Amino acid sequence: METKSSAVRAYRWEPDGLWLLDQRRLPAEERWVACRRPEDVARAIREMVVRGAPLIGVAGAYGVALACRLHAGDPDAVERAAEQLRTARPTAINLAWAVDRVMARLRREGYAAELAAEEAGRLADEDQHSCWRIGEAGATLMPVEGGVLTHCNTGALATAGIGTAAGVIRRAVARGHRLRVYATETRPYLQGARLTAWELSREGIDVTVITDGMAGYVMQKGLVQAVVVGADRVARNGDVANKIGTYGLAVLARAHGIPFYVAAPYSSVDLSLPDGDAIPIEHRDPAEVTQVAGVEVAPPGVPALHPAFDVTPAHLVTAIITDRGVRYPPYLRSLPLEEATAP
Amino acid sequence: METKSSAVRAYRWEPDGLWLLDQRRLPAEERWVACRRPEDVARAIREMVVRGAPLIGVAGAYGVALACRLHAGDPDAVERAAEQLRTARPTAINLAWAVDRVMARLRREGYAAELAAEEAGRLADEDQHSCWRIGEAGATLMPVEGGVLTHCNTGALATAGIGTAAGVIRRAVARGHRLRVYATETRPYLQGARLTAWELSREGIDVTVITDGMAGYVMQKGLVQAVVVGADRVARNGDVANKIGTYGLAVLARAHGIPFYVAAPYSSVDLSLPDGDAIPIEHRDPAEVTQVAGVEVAPPGVPALHPAFDVTPAHLVTAIITDRGVRYPPYLRSLPLEEATAP
Repeated sequence: METKSSAVRAYRWEPDGLWLLDQRRLPAEERWVACRRPEDVARAIREMVVRGAPLIGVAGAYGVALACRLHAGDPDAVERAAEQLRTARPTAINLAWAVDRVMARLRREGYAAELAAEEAGRLADEDQHSCWRIGEAGATLMPVEGGVLTHCNTGALATAGIGTAAGVIRRAVARGHRLRVYATETRPYLQGARLTAWELSREGIDVTVITDGMAGYVMQKGLVQAVVVGADRVARNGDVANKIGTYGLAVLARAHGIPFYVAAPYSSVDLSLPDGDAIPIEHRDPAEVTQVAGVEVAPPGVPALHPAFDVTPAHLVTAIITDRGVRYPPYLRSLPLEEATAP
Repeated sequence: METKSSAVRAYRWEPDGLWLLDQRRLPAEERWVACRRPEDVARAIREMVVRGAPLIGVAGAYGVALACRLHAGDPDAVERAAEQLRTARPTAINLAWAVDRVMARLRREGYAAELAAEEAGRLADEDQHSCWRIGEAGATLMPVEGGVLTHCNTGALATAGIGTAAGVIRRAVARGHRLRVYATETRPYLQGARLTAWELSREGIDVTVITDGMAGYVMQKGLVQAVVVGADRVARNGDVANKIGTYGLAVLARAHGIPFYVAAPYSSVDLSLPDGDAIPIEHRDPAEVTQVAGVEVAPPGVPALHPAFDVTPAHLVTAIITDRGVRYPPYLRSLPLEEATAP
């Protein structure tokens, strides 16, 4: 199976550590950050040098390898470092899932950096294949010709492969669908304007940036035939936690009769949670809202909210596109299946 | 009737011209821009030194006074300058309406700067009273205690008085309603974060800034009991053109069973237009979207959309709060009435 692409790569595992492309500075600057200790990786995840549910899983896994190197012969210290890594951000299940998988192997086979790095590399390879399968499964759901709205960044900068929602778009375009992508800028971090527009435009995909508040307008004008977004965690009933603003897009899509698709690896599905209320939502520093591109925009002292994610109830989700097939409602029945059956 | 308030003043008419508080620089800097010629005023309106439907009407009216001064004894030149002023921005009906009113008087009584300035001052006084009446009419519609979401800036920086939607909030708070205001930041110009938060917080009103994408979240969490926004133009059937993003808020409010109020002077109602499709929507420079606070955020060459307004269909509008009473559906019947009858 061909899963390579011309998509950008957001990390490098090198003999001297994990190198991360600093996503806060893109597209203005392509700066790489070196992480030599596990706490460097945890900080990079917390401070959003690296982001995107699948990718922070991979980064966290390599962080465990760095912990083994730093704390050779001290399994307890590795365990403590792993705990710090797995809780660096709370909402995406992929981070805890990836760290847990590496740790499970180390507990069986020994706390060796090589083993951890091998397992991290395996996770990355799997994620790359997973993105490809998501892309292939979702491509056929995209319009043959028309507009697709996406939110935040779900591409090569959020995964180890071609992306989740962006992977669906990439594979549809590769199959000849004539798509115009509307990328919501995605305040406060502007991942849509900075990252999605950058990734897709350098591959020649037709992408137009809109502010988050323009989503209703483009739908009302008939410019959008499908919405496809990623997920940080999916509950057993199909409720989806994703970047703040996703819920509003789902409501708007429903109001316009536009299908609303969620694309995520099956590892983002958390069958242990009955519904979205149980998904922990990260609240970040309100200063990230009152400052834009480093400039203070709100008056000093005025409070702001900064939930980093919201929860879209399952009834607004047309289908969930996973690397194990497309899942349709009722999700309580379709999500627990290891492989999707035909709809 | 008491219509004064501690609200900030956005313009001053002085012997040497019209001075405008540069709203693009607030709250970081309180810089005043001097307009000595009518084209200075037209440019200030186009470039958003001054904004807000009622206030650009007042500014345009003073611009006519400057034209009379510059082109004394040349009515044709005044007429040309007035045409330039009335078309400086297309969507808000108030601008054309105000300039037309001053011109009608000049055509009757002579093209004298004093007459024009007097008429402009009268318009400003009327707008001040109008804001007060909107505020009083709308205050009773606000929750006694709860959250109110508003969009863009509709306050003293958008009018000659306490504002339209912000006036409703101000009068409700003055009457003892315990309100928490959620101000959407309102990309791309951030009038909510920069102007509404600034205006309201300096009067001690409880205001919290959210990104546009968080509106769904705060409604879903039960934090919002009413939405109140302004209008740039209202069609005969009750369709409302207002700042981009308004339509999405109206859809969200409906989905949550939250009342959605529009507050505007009756002069914003354009009975000549059958519905919102007939309202001209201004499309501004996409660079205003791809740059944030002067910093380029999207990759070079990537296109962006920038409709400055959207149209909210009447069926999503719970009531329209005007200086001539509150209008309820069906708007085709209630809007044309000179004064509102009891609902």
